[in-house]
Amino acid sequence: MKIKGIYTPNIVPFARDGSVNEHELRRLTSWLIDKGIHGLYPNGSTGEFIRLSFEERLRVVRIMASENRGRIPILAGAAEANIDLVLKACHAYADLGCAAVSLTGPYYFKVSQESIEHYFREIAARSPIDILLYNIPQFSNEISLPVVQRLALDCPRIIGIKDSSRDFPRFCTLLAQIKPQRPDFVCFSGTEEILFPSLMMGGDGGTIASSSVIPEVILKIYSDFQAGNYAECRRVQLKIQELISTMFAAGNFPEGFRAAVALRGFDPGPPRFPMSPQEQEHLEEAKGKLACILGDCGYAEAAKECELRRRKPVLAKKVSRDDVEKIVRAVISKYQS
Amino acid sequence: MKIKGIYTPNIVPFARDGSVNEHELRRLTSWLIDKGIHGLYPNGSTGEFIRLSFEERLRVVRIMASENRGRIPILAGAAEANIDLVLKACHAYADLGCAAVSLTGPYYFKVSQESIEHYFREIAARSPIDILLYNIPQFSNEISLPVVQRLALDCPRIIGIKDSSRDFPRFCTLLAQIKPQRPDFVCFSGTEEILFPSLMMGGDGGTIASSSVIPEVILKIYSDFQAGNYAECRRVQLKIQELISTMFAAGNFPEGFRAAVALRGFDPGPPRFPMSPQEQEHLEEAKGKLACILGDCGYAEAAKECELRRRKPVLAKKVSRDDVEKIVRAVISKYQS
Amino acid sequence: MKIKGIYTPNIVPFARDGSVNEHELRRLTSWLIDKGIHGLYPNGSTGEFIRLSFEERLRVVRIMASENRGRIPILAGAAEANIDLVLKACHAYADLGCAAVSLTGPYYFKVSQESIEHYFREIAARSPIDILLYNIPQFSNEISLPVVQRLALDCPRIIGIKDSSRDFPRFCTLLAQIKPQRPDFVCFSGTEEILFPSLMMGGDGGTIASSSVIPEVILKIYSDFQAGNYAECRRVQLKIQELISTMFAAGNFPEGFRAAVALRGFDPGPPRFPMSPQEQEHLEEAKGKLACILGDCGYAEAAKECELRRRKPVLAKKVSRDDVEKIVRAVISKYQS
Amino acid sequence: MKIKGIYTPNIVPFARDGSVNEHELRRLTSWLIDKGIHGLYPNGSTGEFIRLSFEERLRVVRIMASENRGRIPILAGAAEANIDLVLKACHAYADLGCAAVSLTGPYYFKVSQESIEHYFREIAARSPIDILLYNIPQFSNEISLPVVQRLALDCPRIIGIKDSSRDFPRFCTLLAQIKPQRPDFVCFSGTEEILFPSLMMGGDGGTIASSSVIPEVILKIYSDFQAGNYAECRRVQLKIQELISTMFAAGNFPEGFRAAVALRGFDPGPPRFPMSPQEQEHLEEAKGKLACILGDCGYAEAAKECELRRRKPVLAKKVSRDDVEKIVRAVISKYQS
Repeated sequence: MKIKGIYTPNIVPFARDGSVNEHELRRLTSWLIDKGIHGLYPNGSTGEFIRLSFEERLRVVRIMASENRGRIPILAGAAEANIDLVLKACHAYADLGCAAVSLTGPYYFKVSQESIEHYFREIAARSPIDILLYNIPQFSNEISLPVVQRLALDCPRIIGIKDSSRDFPRFCTLLAQIKPQRPDFVCFSGTEEILFPSLMMGGDGGTIASSSVIPEVILKIYSDFQAGNYAECRRVQLKIQELISTMFAAGNFPEGFRAAVALRGFDPGPPRFPMSPQEQEHLEEAKGKLACILGDCGYAEAAKECELRRRKPVLAKKVSRDDVEKIVRAVISKYQS
Repeated sequence: MKIKGIYTPNIVPFARDGSVNEHELRRLTSWLIDKGIHGLYPNGSTGEFIRLSFEERLRVVRIMASENRGRIPILAGAAEANIDLVLKACHAYADLGCAAVSLTGPYYFKVSQESIEHYFREIAARSPIDILLYNIPQFSNEISLPVVQRLALDCPRIIGIKDSSRDFPRFCTLLAQIKPQRPDFVCFSGTEEILFPSLMMGGDGGTIASSSVIPEVILKIYSDFQAGNYAECRRVQLKIQELISTMFAAGNFPEGFRAAVALRGFDPGPPRFPMSPQEQEHLEEAKGKLACILGDCGYAEAAKECELRRRKPVLAKKVSRDDVEKIVRAVISKYQS
Repeated sequence: MKIKGIYTPNIVPFARDGSVNEHELRRLTSWLIDKGIHGLYPNGSTGEFIRLSFEERLRVVRIMASENRGRIPILAGAAEANIDLVLKACHAYADLGCAAVSLTGPYYFKVSQESIEHYFREIAARSPIDILLYNIPQFSNEISLPVVQRLALDCPRIIGIKDSSRDFPRFCTLLAQIKPQRPDFVCFSGTEEILFPSLMMGGDGGTIASSSVIPEVILKIYSDFQAGNYAECRRVQLKIQELISTMFAAGNFPEGFRAAVALRGFDPGPPRFPMSPQEQEHLEEAKGKLACILGDCGYAEAAKECELRRRKPVLAKKVSRDDVEKIVRAVISKYQS
Repeated sequence: MKIKGIYTPNIVPFARDGSVNEHELRRLTSWLIDKGIHGLYPNGSTGEFIRLSFEERLRVVRIMASENRGRIPILAGAAEANIDLVLKACHAYADLGCAAVSLTGPYYFKVSQESIEHYFREIAARSPIDILLYNIPQFSNEISLPVVQRLALDCPRIIGIKDSSRDFPRFCTLLAQIKPQRPDFVCFSGTEEILFPSLMMGGDGGTIASSSVIPEVILKIYSDFQAGNYAECRRVQLKIQELISTMFAAGNFPEGFRAAVALRGFDPGPPRFPMSPQEQEHLEEAKGKLACILGDCGYAEAAKECELRRRKPVLAKKVSRDDVEKIVRAVISKYQS
């Protein structure tokens, strides 16, 4: 089964006690499948794999695989602390029927490209399951283009790359270099803002975190693309930029995405990484903005939430922080002069 | 006259004594106009403005304006050491009939976004000529998106932005944020590898250094885009990635581009920034590769050059850097064992 | 017991099967204690904590605590994937009698300074053991100076900082800002090259990876400093720069340190992060150089190893890679002309 | 004459019309000489060389050389847009009797280390005056350690390096690598916060911008160092960290330094790079803080200014940015609840 289309890197809902909330995770999983996404993607960055324990990562995939019941393919994040643990995860995910795993470059230490290549060759030689490289240099060592190319040509187990580098020129060069030599090599974009141009240039789809917030819209971009409705693709892609920016700006990643998923009727629960009171306040503001953006897009629950927040006391509605700051400054400067 | 289409940031040919070679610069200018490019762009990064003196930058624009005789619009780089000099350049370029100037963020010192905004507001208020912001954070202070947006909405003199940041998600967000509020704001891409997707998302064109090497091809992408031949746009865009990578990898920028322009029949002359013997050797190798790539694309002069180089003595043909590396290792391991 | 003096961030020796080699780890631990180091520091970056499993990190501390038998204080690295796991590690290390734990800023995701402050406040409020902040922005989120200062003033559990940022101006500003308000706040340097100047400015000591290679020398710098023999401190500090540079340049960190520990008579075993054949060759070269540097410093085992390697076939001894490269290039250019 | 001791990278005072204020520049120059600094350093980063025109840079040196009348050595910044202009500046400064020039790595473009080495070799071969390399990777291309070492050994014209990288481990490695082979190679620190440790490790002095604000104090560190009063050196070095931090935080560099020079009785005039009203306000606040810090150190003019500002109207005295923030929050939360 070819990895293709829209894969959803889901958030992980947590219970009040901080553990993985199986009930909500199952609801979210089935909801996404019902919406029509093409594949599940547990243990991505959106799924905060780095903040889970090894056992929790396994549990997340186990729950989702069980809920999925083979309906759509699962790409499971299998980045672990060392090769033995990576392979242990690979075996577990293969046994659970996953279609493939994704692997970031090693994190924390800076490692040479030569080492990174060797690292992936070792894993590829021993993995019982297909591998998608996961390039995300913001957080872990970059997997350079020449390394990707050599791995693509030499390692049948490495079937593609998910690029979240935001470096689109790199993505285009990748397509130009690798596809002619290995046409089945999966080139996935992990950057929300450029899904449509990625497809337009020959990409195979993407792991798009927004697809757990607005799966209908992301899937529409994909189907419009397949139907050749490019003008509509552009219109929709440009329309969602504000939503995306707002989710990224709403606090530490992925809290903005978790807040938006809540607006679709799920309970993300407490953050795994703690938030200060000020950050919580900031997230609340962002949530209000997200509710109104989603409401404008026609999502009923969000529209209601937007309306509710709008009805709050007059000042809260009309006066922004900047406004108050201006007023206070004006008062002060009057007294000072 | 709206800034739109393909603008060519030309290289500056130098004479043997290191001065600007007026004859070749005139030939190159007219050749580009004859090829059909939509605008000239002297004093860009490709034109090494930072390595010219103030007087030389003026001279380059004067020569090109004189050769142009008003045939196509000129966008002139006017980044200078301070506001007074920027404005002096603006006046000079306005007097020479340029359509607009482009201005990078300040370079060398790190400057706050608040300062950068104030800097551009000051210039915009006093400039006799339209201004395109030039965002190139690799080399000079970034002009952040919120600053661009406020300048776009407040300053009529600032008519657009040329983004060379390679950050395409940013470019798409820019289009989504600014175009609805100021539809005539020019959004130019300065990144060769993504011209077609930039157009596809609603960009107005680009300042594309490759267009002084393969103007025919870059213009074809643009006209194919306008005709809706998107598959052809993609095919050609992907096809030129190797040429672009090779030009960037051929030594210090813009020597690879200068070498490629030479293959079209111009004499770029000696480099303004000196090259070591090893770098010259490396550039020669790259030039051979460029000649063959261009030859494959049907350029006669380049094909001849490629052929000539292929006929050179056996060893020169066969021994690459990698080969040398292999020989070195072989010699060492033989003697060590 | 005040944390003070030279703490050794030890490497972890691995057995052939890749597991932690308890026997060698015990030998190394006791050897370090016998040499006179002031404290043990398991699970530092040198101890590759990030490449161990949670259980392995616990095991390393358990083995070392058992071997130590309370002879010297233990500072144990307790950076884990989330707060619950950090606190679990804190409890375990407290139970094992450790003096304190060290905590890096969170890794992988970029997190705001506000969040980082909140994160440490949460842990400090609940930890059963004293905490040393561990600032290493090369690998994990920086803990900014204002955050350090507020934590130092508000949180009794946070007793100091280990700064491995290589940013000595920052270290000096830290001393100037915090010591006057909280004189017992431990300011440790984690940067080998500047141990003496750190002490000179008022630092309390350091976690110095070289102290598991040349404990005698590092301890001499410390005791010379206490005796006021500053000229001797400088002489020795400058003398060891080459050793330090060579260990850092010998491949992916901490392989150079592991190779040097081997030259003192320990078996570090296979690397936890795999090395390509080329890297192994490079490490062997570096090991030869390290052996001769250590030999020059009077270490018998290393001197013997240096001698052995010098006796290897003529070319291996005399010809460096650069030499061979030059020869090959010369031959080629002769044939080409 | 050996370059040694404390060199002052002076600010450039500007007249109301924005031109170089010769009168104040002469006053400042003679004042510094009278205070006892060991050398003048026009056209450093503090002197905003990058924001002056070529002619202005020459004028600054001409004025200062004329005022100096050979009393102390002048090290003149000669970084220019290209080699020809660098050499033109070198000749001019040699003719004016300067002791040496300093040269940053090239700025704007990223250039390979190989090119940078070649660049300095070319200049060194043709310069009529001694050269100090100026490493400031924050603003221009780094000059890597191996390049510095090779230049030091091969080029008699290159007599030293001024390192402003803030990377003190690098500075120590530099001392260890180069001094044994070329003992007269000048190793200057350009980092205010670590002057004393730089001297302690064997550095020859520094170009210290604070020495135009508190020349007495910086010179005291130097003379205390020479007298072996290390405890006093440390005390004073730590004491001035707050002043330094405040000057750096006071807006775009070097406005904080210019404001502090004003507190010593000079008129720096308007900024060369424009400041927004908010930045001006922020600078005024910083100036108040600087006045009080300097006042505490016993500088009469500053103490008076501090006192004056303290007497300003009630609100101005009491309301800081943080206060405004608190009021804003209070107002909002009151109206929202």
